[in-house]
Amino acid sequence: MRGAVIYAPRDVRVEERPEPRIAEPTDAIVRVAATCVCGSDLWAYRGINPVTQPYPTGHEYAGVVEETGRDVVSVRPGQFVIGSFFASDGTCPNCRNGYQTSCLHREPVTGCQAEAIRVPLADGTLVATPAQPADELVPSLLALSDVAGTGWYAAVAADVRPGATVAVVGDGAVGLLGVLAAAQLGAERIIAMSRHESRQKLALDFGATEIVTERGDDGVARIKELTSGIGADAVLECVGTGESMLQAMRSARPGGNVGFVGVPHGVDIPAAELFYSHVALRGGPAPVRRFLPDLIDRVWNGRIDPGRVFDLTLPLDQTAEAYRAMDERRAIKPLLRP
Amino acid sequence: MRGAVIYAPRDVRVEERPEPRIAEPTDAIVRVAATCVCGSDLWAYRGINPVTQPYPTGHEYAGVVEETGRDVVSVRPGQFVIGSFFASDGTCPNCRNGYQTSCLHREPVTGCQAEAIRVPLADGTLVATPAQPADELVPSLLALSDVAGTGWYAAVAADVRPGATVAVVGDGAVGLLGVLAAAQLGAERIIAMSRHESRQKLALDFGATEIVTERGDDGVARIKELTSGIGADAVLECVGTGESMLQAMRSARPGGNVGFVGVPHGVDIPAAELFYSHVALRGGPAPVRRFLPDLIDRVWNGRIDPGRVFDLTLPLDQTAEAYRAMDERRAIKPLLRP
Repeated sequence: MRGAVIYAPRDVRVEERPEPRIAEPTDAIVRVAATCVCGSDLWAYRGINPVTQPYPTGHEYAGVVEETGRDVVSVRPGQFVIGSFFASDGTCPNCRNGYQTSCLHREPVTGCQAEAIRVPLADGTLVATPAQPADELVPSLLALSDVAGTGWYAAVAADVRPGATVAVVGDGAVGLLGVLAAAQLGAERIIAMSRHESRQKLALDFGATEIVTERGDDGVARIKELTSGIGADAVLECVGTGESMLQAMRSARPGGNVGFVGVPHGVDIPAAELFYSHVALRGGPAPVRRFLPDLIDRVWNGRIDPGRVFDLTLPLDQTAEAYRAMDERRAIKPLLRP
Repeated sequence: MRGAVIYAPRDVRVEERPEPRIAEPTDAIVRVAATCVCGSDLWAYRGINPVTQPYPTGHEYAGVVEETGRDVVSVRPGQFVIGSFFASDGTCPNCRNGYQTSCLHREPVTGCQAEAIRVPLADGTLVATPAQPADELVPSLLALSDVAGTGWYAAVAADVRPGATVAVVGDGAVGLLGVLAAAQLGAERIIAMSRHESRQKLALDFGATEIVTERGDDGVARIKELTSGIGADAVLECVGTGESMLQAMRSARPGGNVGFVGVPHGVDIPAAELFYSHVALRGGPAPVRRFLPDLIDRVWNGRIDPGRVFDLTLPLDQTAEAYRAMDERRAIKPLLRP
């Protein structure tokens, strides 16, 4: 089968790789209907994370179960499924608490930019759609595998409630889907922070009520201005830099909440500032699995269309071009069809 | 009237000071029935915070209203009252959200180690008891002014719920009252971290179910051992050092909460570690005013006795000895009677 492998920064190749096989009785093999490139894939692509040896890339997937190990009971061959980028057993205390990405037996699902993948812990990881999806639903279902689930978690971690005023820091695909999540969770005002016209437009389509183009302290001042000097009830931090983290903390009102899903790189949070702000922080790799049944239902019934973040669709063989387009910000998020 | 003034590290004197007077129509004058020394008073006493000029000390108080400004309507002369260490208007958005210590018009209440004080914004700040309290209730009512309200906030910020497993980092008066708060809020297991016998005993009296004497990483390992490797649902951080903050974060389970009320001094929180922990943090100067009506009721009806943290009672004139006893850890918390 064909699959993408990264050899070095800016060197991603699609090549012939071995067919995945059942290794454990809890595994499933999934024929990939659609996959995509994640912002976090760019760390290695840009040389920020070292590439010490070639490895298969991608961790987002939706597709059809081809085979299951003998212990798998919750999905069967032929079903269309979506799963998280971390496989989880679904039974440990952390899974039962809804933090499946902290599952005691978690395993990364890797090499998803490919025709087929092995998914460990299939019972705890995969969720089937009610039937075979229409082709136009596939991008939105794929989005649930990570990016839409991550935006959703940002909103949940920030405790977005009906009537809330929400600010979203970051206009990448996760930030845009954070806007969508906040709207679905009943936010009354959603302030998207973006200076790119096409992204602003999508944010507004997803439910943003206001756009702020300023960043850093100017952005904070603008949020305060829009909220009678108090700050937002909930702030979604979808970038992961020190600047964006401070911008998020300072944009929240006393007693407000920041959900942070941008993976922090070398960021320290000044505890005294956090203390006096009265703001709560919760972050982490999104426990996408917690949200999958609900989000699949919302996509299935046409209530959300998170697949709109895919503004470029390419065949799997052009994975290298997909990375280039995302790296150069020519695309918000590229979808790949094996 | 007599009142304490700090002149320099380890130099606290009780001397004749001017009687407080109504300065604003929203003020009240309170004749102090009892006051005390706070852990935070020791910063100046120990020379950690500089004393650039002499100033009146103390911020905890309970006593009888002597006079009110012409705009005050919610308390009247003769009533026994308790208030927070920050005066708050009770009407701004932050007050209405329950974060009165972030009141837009907040003012510190100062110089409380004295016979009488001026309390600004009396309507938003003071809460009267149902009647004149019996003398033996006065220590517990005084405790509500800061230390018990702060322990309570730590438990609320850590989202302690019925059935929860709670760990408390710090065995000072705030930590001990965090134990009491967790018990009142329905925690099933409360693990107090303490290596001092008298404090362990009080923790057990207040509702602790287990004692852990280890600190730092060893303390974390012990908490994990006691919680099937997962960590506590809620952790109360009542110290304020970098070590205690990390100990608290690492003692919480994925999806758990840390309430931190130890004022952080020069502490940075590693954002990546917080991210991967899935733990939420909320801290801040406790919005004691939010809890006063409920806590007064609990003291009045004998359900809680937070005044037990006062293990030394001295007349106001011996304020200097009270500071010494607390500084040398001969007393958990000294109460002063003017």
